[in-house]
Amino acid sequence: KTIAVLPGDGIGPEVVKAALKVLDQIAEQYQHQFEYRYADIGGIAIDLHQTPLPQRTLDTCRQSDAILLGAVGGPKWDQLPSHMRPEKGLLQLRKSLQLFANLRPVTCYESLLEASPLKPERIKGVDFVIVRELTGGIYFGEPRERRYDNDEELAIDTLTYTRKEIERIVRKGFELAQVRRKKVTSVDKANVLESSRLWREVVDEVAKEYPEVSYEHMLVDNAAMQLIRQPTYFDVMVTENMFGDILSDEASMLTGSLGMLPSASLSAIGPSLYEPIHGSAPDIAGENKANPLATISSLAMMLKYEFGLEEEAEALDEAIESVLKKGIRTADLASAGVEYHSTEAVTNEVIEQLS
Amino acid sequence: KTIAVLPGDGIGPEVVKAALKVLDQIAEQYQHQFEYRYADIGGIAIDLHQTPLPQRTLDTCRQSDAILLGAVGGPKWDQLPSHMRPEKGLLQLRKSLQLFANLRPVTCYESLLEASPLKPERIKGVDFVIVRELTGGIYFGEPRERRYDNDEELAIDTLTYTRKEIERIVRKGFELAQVRRKKVTSVDKANVLESSRLWREVVDEVAKEYPEVSYEHMLVDNAAMQLIRQPTYFDVMVTENMFGDILSDEASMLTGSLGMLPSASLSAIGPSLYEPIHGSAPDIAGENKANPLATISSLAMMLKYEFGLEEEAEALDEAIESVLKKGIRTADLASAGVEYHSTEAVTNEVIEQLS
Ligand SMILES: CC(C)[C@H](C(=O)O)[C@@H](O)C(=O)O
Ligand SMILES: CC(C)[C@H](C(=O)O)[C@@H](O)C(=O)O
Repeated sequence: KTIAVLPGDGIGPEVVKAALKVLDQIAEQYQHQFEYRYADIGGIAIDLHQTPLPQRTLDTCRQSDAILLGAVGGPKWDQLPSHMRPEKGLLQLRKSLQLFANLRPVTCYESLLEASPLKPERIKGVDFVIVRELTGGIYFGEPRERRYDNDEELAIDTLTYTRKEIERIVRKGFELAQVRRKKVTSVDKANVLESSRLWREVVDEVAKEYPEVSYEHMLVDNAAMQLIRQPTYFDVMVTENMFGDILSDEASMLTGSLGMLPSASLSAIGPSLYEPIHGSAPDIAGENKANPLATISSLAMMLKYEFGLEEEAEALDEAIESVLKKGIRTADLASAGVEYHSTEAVTNEVIEQLS
Repeated sequence: KTIAVLPGDGIGPEVVKAALKVLDQIAEQYQHQFEYRYADIGGIAIDLHQTPLPQRTLDTCRQSDAILLGAVGGPKWDQLPSHMRPEKGLLQLRKSLQLFANLRPVTCYESLLEASPLKPERIKGVDFVIVRELTGGIYFGEPRERRYDNDEELAIDTLTYTRKEIERIVRKGFELAQVRRKKVTSVDKANVLESSRLWREVVDEVAKEYPEVSYEHMLVDNAAMQLIRQPTYFDVMVTENMFGDILSDEASMLTGSLGMLPSASLSAIGPSLYEPIHGSAPDIAGENKANPLATISSLAMMLKYEFGLEEEAEALDEAIESVLKKGIRTADLASAGVEYHSTEAVTNEVIEQLS
């Protein structure tokens, strides 16, 4: 199996390196061969190739069986014009490979209940997946520009969704619910947005194909509230691009740290992409402090969804859980006053647990 | 002083009635005269006048010194076409009266620390204001429509902001910060949206006029997280319409219930509007169960901001706090197993505390 490896910026390279060390261990234990093909994206690609997504990177991704990404962005590139920003590389990659379905599982580990800002009794048993549309909506709609209307300076962004785009992501949500607890919450803002009203219509139609799955519509403002009020309520939450961006970062707080959440971005046409949902955290880059678990979890998703290696994926998830139980944690998860461990220490512990 | 009173739908009439009973008490105690002018908005207006915002309602508002609103909407009107929905009445009112600055204070009452899903130590001392732009952005941009492009059905919404629109709301944020803890957090999605990049530019410029106020930019996904991670961090958060809608409902969970949060929508040209941020809660309408405190708090904001009656506003806030301390609470705030009180009981208790 070939994996395109895109470390990116900030803590990206560190967590990717850590995750691949773990994957090497899996390969050895279970007799697999993974070939890594490194390529640049984001700020590093701007520095080296004057573009956030070089053609070679895109080609490498297309020719691989799966893609592992670290993170992109950092203050160094914040002042560049918008087409030359690190994030643009990621957005272009999503669009080019049609990575339309972003799966963000939110699970509360028993041993991390105390690390969350929420009361343990509220988050115990939380286990849901946010299915975020990733290649449409206001992230890509045209026009998106600055202009003057009668001497008035203004800026415009456009939110568009076609029926087909909504259909395929909603169907993903229902399919996933079918192998889970059979409950879909579709999030929109139908009392304000035209696109949400189309979204709602499509959900009602697609739902008919899945009679054994129950579903409901929820307004995004209410969803932002219910995620905190009763997070155990949710099974599969399906929503458009921007709402998914906001709600999934919010949801990460249930687990105690953004450093825990993995994601898979499934493609309509080729290889899928796996990445932690956290960013490049430039403030701690290079300090051996970043939490590698979100990236390692993302690999577990890759093993399961892309390669069908369920046993290996489970072994990995269990290893992560054991490490947490032992109290071996990076700074983002450690309680005040408690000693925390380095990226490397946590990674080695995962490997130890595996073997 | 004349107050336009728009009870609206669902629990709207109940909480408005409760709040006015409290205002009557204030009037008596402090020798003021308030004249109430009732008018219809939302679903009730559709039923009675075939439009969610009758001209007479708009006139009444324009001719009053302030506006008190309950809530609009309900399942009864959910299937109507979009120009005939209850929410449209509220949106039109905001636009017509140029209610551009929506102030949503979030304060955690000491006696409600336990009612929040968050750990008490995280929310103790929370005291910030979300300043939400209310008459621009994706709520009002054109085009907003359903259409066909080469046989593909699609829906479009448009997010626009002019420099002037951004300037006036950002300035409100800085002005407010100046009489508070002098810290502004401007929330945007500048790594994706053109409108956010203009927003950022304007913030940087306006900030120069307020050298004693410190400020920062924060991405909306991060803000959704930080609100939960360290809510005491914030003083004034200023943001565009849709982000403000989502973040303020999320923030309401810090206080234990959406039933606690008041809001003021300040006008650029005429009277301002005061309303609870909660909705019409059709499921408990007419049951004497709704929490009247958000509406009563909204009146306190009216007294202070609109009429300059600081002493009266403070008395009201203190009365609310005493009632909470005594454990007199509606169902939304009561702990499981504990007896809860009716809308009326809580209201009478506030009046008792006042006198
Ligand atoms: C980096 C940024 C463009 C991206 C997004 O908004 O999609 C990130 O926040 C994410 O969630 O993957
Ligand atoms: C009713 C709805 C249109 C409104 C909004 O989205 O602005 C409400 O959620 C609010 O926050 O006042």
